[in-house]
Amino acid sequence: MEILKDRIRREAVVLPGNIIKIDGFLNHQIDVELLREMALEFRRLFPDTDYTKILTVEASGIALGAMTAQVFGLPLLFAKKAKSDNIEGGLYRSDIFSYTYKKKVTLIVAKQWLSAGEKVLIIDDFLARGEALRGLCDIADQAGATVGGIGIAVEKGFQGGGKTLRDAGYNLHSLAIIESATETEITFR
Amino acid sequence: MEILKDRIRREAVVLPGNIIKIDGFLNHQIDVELLREMALEFRRLFPDTDYTKILTVEASGIALGAMTAQVFGLPLLFAKKAKSDNIEGGLYRSDIFSYTYKKKVTLIVAKQWLSAGEKVLIIDDFLARGEALRGLCDIADQAGATVGGIGIAVEKGFQGGGKTLRDAGYNLHSLAIIESATETEITFR
Repeated sequence: MEILKDRIRREAVVLPGNIIKIDGFLNHQIDVELLREMALEFRRLFPDTDYTKILTVEASGIALGAMTAQVFGLPLLFAKKAKSDNIEGGLYRSDIFSYTYKKKVTLIVAKQWLSAGEKVLIIDDFLARGEALRGLCDIADQAGATVGGIGIAVEKGFQGGGKTLRDAGYNLHSLAIIESATETEITFR
Repeated sequence: MEILKDRIRREAVVLPGNIIKIDGFLNHQIDVELLREMALEFRRLFPDTDYTKILTVEASGIALGAMTAQVFGLPLLFAKKAKSDNIEGGLYRSDIFSYTYKKKVTLIVAKQWLSAGEKVLIIDDFLARGEALRGLCDIADQAGATVGGIGIAVEKGFQGGGKTLRDAGYNLHSLAIIESATETEITFR
């Protein structure tokens, strides 16, 4: 998606350790009009009409998830990150490893809001190693729901998460795939 | 706002300790169409045309903040909750007490995205004791920005946060103010 790639070229900051900061329009300050354009692109990439819900994870997936839910005319459901081990019952949960925080994080979704037979479209802002998406797919599996597609804003193609998910058969589309990033140049696939 | 009060009457669950769960349409599963109606109501309640930014806090403020930013035609900026004491420079920060997690939480906003002379509209899903809003107002003050208004979906009127903010002179509007809540009845102001 060219307008997204252009914004990344102009505004992304590459930090040591292949950390790509896109916090001027995607995940701190947010350009909601650009996110709406991205949501319309997801509508084209995922044309099925039998999705029942948009599924994402807090925090930075929520804005893009909300704009996508609006375009699809569906509810948004976001997995929460458990803040303690003192979790109530009635929840699907999946343990993932957060490379950002360098520790285990448990994703939780109330069973009440995801049921067998549903078909979800998973949306997230970033895909690197794919841990958050693995957790969301795991939760959908636990619920007996189908993952009809995975829509990502920015994939770091050199970190393998996307390859793993595509090899596993998921219908994954990323609007921009970064092949390599240095302080002076970002190259897209 | 009657459609919001009706949904609360029908779907909210009141737990011991005056905890009001509204996670079927507001802060876990999200009804984006209802949020858009709420955003349009904020547009009517806050008619000034010189707001520069919508300001909210992760995680459950983001969806409502995004819909409001769309209606206002403004960027959304969400404060992050610091996950560690290892915070980089270039940030406004404000310590608040989280009654949900029963511990201190530090709200952070990159200085790059909030400047002197800006006029923000603060949006959040819930107002109880008002700690998160106190932190957001503090961050706006640090930036030299004006808080032109505070728009809340659901205020727990019996917990005092709203009174404190109104007494301090903030232009605060809540779309539903819960005066009392028991397992069998919710009463609005």
